[in-house]
Amino acid sequence: MHDALGIEMEQAGDGVVKGRLPVSDRVRQPFGLVHGGALLTLAESLSSFGTYEGVKDDGKLALGQEINASLMRPITSGHVNGTATVRRRGRTAWVWEVEITDDAGRLCALIRATIAVRDAPA
Amino acid sequence: MHDALGIEMEQAGDGVVKGRLPVSDRVRQPFGLVHGGALLTLAESLSSFGTYEGVKDDGKLALGQEINASLMRPITSGHVNGTATVRRRGRTAWVWEVEITDDAGRLCALIRATIAVRDAPA
Amino acid sequence: MHDALGIEMEQAGDGVVKGRLPVSDRVRQPFGLVHGGALLTLAESLSSFGTYEGVKDDGKLALGQEINASLMRPITSGHVNGTATVRRRGRTAWVWEVEITDDAGRLCALIRATIAVRDAPA
Amino acid sequence: MHDALGIEMEQAGDGVVKGRLPVSDRVRQPFGLVHGGALLTLAESLSSFGTYEGVKDDGKLALGQEINASLMRPITSGHVNGTATVRRRGRTAWVWEVEITDDAGRLCALIRATIAVRDAPA
Repeated sequence: MHDALGIEMEQAGDGVVKGRLPVSDRVRQPFGLVHGGALLTLAESLSSFGTYEGVKDDGKLALGQEINASLMRPITSGHVNGTATVRRRGRTAWVWEVEITDDAGRLCALIRATIAVRDAPA
Repeated sequence: MHDALGIEMEQAGDGVVKGRLPVSDRVRQPFGLVHGGALLTLAESLSSFGTYEGVKDDGKLALGQEINASLMRPITSGHVNGTATVRRRGRTAWVWEVEITDDAGRLCALIRATIAVRDAPA
Repeated sequence: MHDALGIEMEQAGDGVVKGRLPVSDRVRQPFGLVHGGALLTLAESLSSFGTYEGVKDDGKLALGQEINASLMRPITSGHVNGTATVRRRGRTAWVWEVEITDDAGRLCALIRATIAVRDAPA
Repeated sequence: MHDALGIEMEQAGDGVVKGRLPVSDRVRQPFGLVHGGALLTLAESLSSFGTYEGVKDDGKLALGQEINASLMRPITSGHVNGTATVRRRGRTAWVWEVEITDDAGRLCALIRATIAVRDAPA
């Protein structure tokens, strides 16, 4: 899905993951606005990646369990930018807050994601 | 985004919209499971489409406002199937419940979406 | 909290728990409407109780983990009535959908709750 | 509900509302932990109060529309403390993030609330 949408991301510090995806017709809905699903996809990718980086050395996987979003301002061009910050590192789940902004730095969505930590198959 | 992910959908009755997207590497994350973002994208598309069909004759638009998901069972092949049922048709927002199933009919996610109803630009 | 709010509940079938709380000034906010917190409290009680009944014989506890609500119609008198239906019985979490109605049977809120299943302290 | 639960709150700056409720058997569930409903009630009170203070001079009311919570750490004694920060002041809805802590300052829950802004009855 990262290739399909052009998602790029990087660990940006302890417990912080940043990423973005370019706005194109691939992620616009018919009214010309970026589809909310693109924002949610970016948010889940950032949160899952950050969790996996934190647990993989213990033989664990990271799987999205719960995600919720308040979509507050449409994005029409530039990039969908996301910053995910971990708020809880639990034994069975990590909780992240994700802020989505446009290229002007305006807050466009607030998302919270719970990523389950599970044993990797042997 | 519908083309990018291959989403198909149709009005399936009064207040019910159904749709699906085919599973391919476009929507898988690195572990081989369908990305939760694909389920959320489908759910928001179904809910927004259903709302828009209901309000467009009044000169209104439909915009995703809130969406939340419980991801319960991974999907790895076949299709991501969604059924959205409207639970409230408000003046300023419609509320939908969406069930996501795999091709065996197993429940994979429960999603609730609030779609704002706004005046279309003149 | 059940005594403070007057919550009554009962197992109403396999995977279904029903309950209610009487509307009084204890649960009204200053505008005369029932506080959304009362609806959420009822929903979490129903879901937690239903989960606990299902796991207690295995030496497990039930703890609220995630809860979300769409508040759709105010309640001003009578009772806050709730019906919780389990949608997933997982090893580490159960997922419930809760419908809140007034005494006229009108849908007032939709709530989804994830209740974690944990080992009881020895 | 504020009296029933002993909720106190105050405007703590522009766009910030703080409050707390004392832990007693009124808000404990049977296992001795504070009921999640008490945390949600506090969060909705803070968000609704803050919205109302911001819109009342325009003849508007504030009504809870959506609320979601990640319950992360149980509270057993002292107070349930909440800080609500507004993240969007929209024409028809305000969005708040609420952090719940115990008296030791540990993060116990993250809550996001959408409060609808409506015309007051004449």
